[in-house]
Amino acid sequence: MDTIKEYISANQDRFLEELFGLIRIPSISSIASHKPDMYRAAEYLKRMLLEAGADSATVFETAGNPVTYAEKIMDASWPTILIYAHMDVMPVDPIDLWKTDPFDPVIVDGKICGRGADDDKGQSFMHVKAFEYMVRSGQLKCNVKFLIEGEEEVGSPNLGDFCKKHKEMLRTDIILVSDTSMIAQDIPSITTGLRGLTYLQIEVTGPNKDLHSGLFGGAVGNPVILLSKMLASVHDENNRITIPGFYDDVLDLTSEEKELLAQAPFDVEKYKSMLGIGEVWGEKGFRVPELTGTRPTFDVCGIWAGYTGEGTKTVLPSKAFAKVSSRIVPNQDHHDIAELIKKHFESIAPPQVKVEVEILHGGPAYICPITLPAYKAAEQAFTETFGKRPVPFRSGGSIPIISTFEKVLNAKSLLMGFGLESDNIHSPNESYPVWNFMKGIETITKFYGYYTA
Amino acid sequence: MDTIKEYISANQDRFLEELFGLIRIPSISSIASHKPDMYRAAEYLKRMLLEAGADSATVFETAGNPVTYAEKIMDASWPTILIYAHMDVMPVDPIDLWKTDPFDPVIVDGKICGRGADDDKGQSFMHVKAFEYMVRSGQLKCNVKFLIEGEEEVGSPNLGDFCKKHKEMLRTDIILVSDTSMIAQDIPSITTGLRGLTYLQIEVTGPNKDLHSGLFGGAVGNPVILLSKMLASVHDENNRITIPGFYDDVLDLTSEEKELLAQAPFDVEKYKSMLGIGEVWGEKGFRVPELTGTRPTFDVCGIWAGYTGEGTKTVLPSKAFAKVSSRIVPNQDHHDIAELIKKHFESIAPPQVKVEVEILHGGPAYICPITLPAYKAAEQAFTETFGKRPVPFRSGGSIPIISTFEKVLNAKSLLMGFGLESDNIHSPNESYPVWNFMKGIETITKFYGYYTA
Repeated sequence: MDTIKEYISANQDRFLEELFGLIRIPSISSIASHKPDMYRAAEYLKRMLLEAGADSATVFETAGNPVTYAEKIMDASWPTILIYAHMDVMPVDPIDLWKTDPFDPVIVDGKICGRGADDDKGQSFMHVKAFEYMVRSGQLKCNVKFLIEGEEEVGSPNLGDFCKKHKEMLRTDIILVSDTSMIAQDIPSITTGLRGLTYLQIEVTGPNKDLHSGLFGGAVGNPVILLSKMLASVHDENNRITIPGFYDDVLDLTSEEKELLAQAPFDVEKYKSMLGIGEVWGEKGFRVPELTGTRPTFDVCGIWAGYTGEGTKTVLPSKAFAKVSSRIVPNQDHHDIAELIKKHFESIAPPQVKVEVEILHGGPAYICPITLPAYKAAEQAFTETFGKRPVPFRSGGSIPIISTFEKVLNAKSLLMGFGLESDNIHSPNESYPVWNFMKGIETITKFYGYYTA
Repeated sequence: MDTIKEYISANQDRFLEELFGLIRIPSISSIASHKPDMYRAAEYLKRMLLEAGADSATVFETAGNPVTYAEKIMDASWPTILIYAHMDVMPVDPIDLWKTDPFDPVIVDGKICGRGADDDKGQSFMHVKAFEYMVRSGQLKCNVKFLIEGEEEVGSPNLGDFCKKHKEMLRTDIILVSDTSMIAQDIPSITTGLRGLTYLQIEVTGPNKDLHSGLFGGAVGNPVILLSKMLASVHDENNRITIPGFYDDVLDLTSEEKELLAQAPFDVEKYKSMLGIGEVWGEKGFRVPELTGTRPTFDVCGIWAGYTGEGTKTVLPSKAFAKVSSRIVPNQDHHDIAELIKKHFESIAPPQVKVEVEILHGGPAYICPITLPAYKAAEQAFTETFGKRPVPFRSGGSIPIISTFEKVLNAKSLLMGFGLESDNIHSPNESYPVWNFMKGIETITKFYGYYTA
């Protein structure tokens, strides 16, 4: 095999079957009963990495889910690339909206369909196969380390400690991450910024039991209505967040940054039509890419109270719950923002209800400078395989652990994602085009070449 | 057996075991899969009524759930009493809050515990047993008809047609209903007013699928936040409902009516402590009994959207749902109010979402004049059995079919309820004190006496 293109074409059925084996393991990190699946996924990846050419691979215990670590050390004086990925996936409900079984992957219309097809099993597996090619073709001119964790979707609560404990083992020049999207299949891009995150649960308690809405309605504060009033007050008429202090640490973009971001093409009509919405929304005075890339948010991810079954039940519920999440931007501290949100909801609680707020998880935002040598290498790799120069852009998503890497491992991360906005990650019918999977493998091998040149 | 007291004391274990047989049938009318249970309940009541002394008893088919009808015709020239009750019950969720199996009745601390223990199996069964005593003791001086339906908890959608079809069969001088509460165990009362009801479901649709809250958050309208804003806007700062036209048909109470209602004792501190709330709520300028008895309301009975499971999921939901209900007062039309609510929500929908509103069921309010001969007879009966004169009061609950009876059967209903506010009807751990069950039987037999005297 001379070239990566030939290698892919000769091995693509095997690549997909190996990836399918990983997707078949329902490694949902937020549901405790799936813990054994986390170990199955970790062992599966260990075997795959050894088969691909790693010198050693180990499944490490943590206080939570296991971590798979593998390495190939060529020469201590050569540069080291650490690939970070995650084997855990999001829950699959609402399950009835899936067109195929989320854990029985199939290819439909050229797309791999299943939970984790993109995020992050599909994307992480590109690295395993790119590594395999580099080893087998004798072209590997660097040391490679794989760090694949099982708690990314729940905020990586134990990976920081793991990094501190294994600082020397994880020593690297650059961290490579494929857990983000491109602007479009024909617009290659490299993510240069990520938002941070904080996630909380709000519990509003009114009367000590569910009440008959006829006998008590009109005289007893309805927890759903009072929660609605609290949630409704979080955004003002310009959709700015009203929580005191929320924007205090948000830095305005420089005109240079604004210009750079404006290079990323964006078609609001296509966006609306893709999402089936009549209008976009958001903080007044910002374009959509600015909103998702550079502005903090407050969203409700879930809400529930009272009777939600078939038909009617005339009940005045005792409790109402909401899961809320805030995306934060560089210079905002996720602990501070979580505390601001918690205090705000506790302070605006009307006297008819008790409000309890639990902070569930969080992580800071991240910026990758485009002057980084690894960025330059990735730029060359994309330009070669996609035939056009990639656009730098800021994504609205979060990979909280990346800031920990910077602090603990003293290494920058390069976000080389090949996903698409249409991949439905975190949603029913997650998918990942086979084309992107193969193009990703190709581009990663080119990155190795330019980075070590 | 000379007296009702002796009869009850000799037969009370049998009375309870017969009632338990009815409670054991999970006749939940709002859940379609319980349809067979509706037939089991109807047949059970038919057998009970025949055993109690009815000349005939029939289970009638309707377009929905069956109706059990029974009668004993003593003399066509004697007055006729029709007893209306319902055999269907509310759903039991949240099931994990029940301390005992809702469909395996037991007596705990002198209370019958189970779904329907009060509403309306316990209360309707008092009539079966009072009738049994009147027949067996040879004291029955009137004709008695029983009309027991299976769709009260879903708004009696088919009973109006049934009444029209069987108008002659159902001809009566007065309708007796035990489906309401007393003010307290030591404050006997007769319900002289009921609120009406309309019940709707609101569906808010934003993006065409659940989205990743990081990638899209801040630029796509969140259906939960937008629904919260709509729900929050329904009450103004004085907790008055802002829906245009909502109060147009509400009549102010006369000073005489106000005075009468003020006779019903009410202790706001006891009320707050019973419900575990720090403050009552409601339209400014009204006391609690005025709020629940004489003012219309808007409540949210259920809400759901997005991720409601364990842990976290960073999702921007595609849809948000709410079940909302309005209690209405005399002179308000439930069809009109339902249309007002529907139109209001459709009109305030922001451009980022689609709002669909479905009207589920409804019924008008009711007033029973205290000059009615049946009211006077009930007043005497309560005074004899409770040792004090009952207080007339308006309840916040609804029995929509009562207005239909007035129109179709041209008969007034007397609301002789023996429930307590602490019975948890429509809630987990529904109960009904054995004392009230037996006292109810006694009082009903006295009513027969005074009414036919």
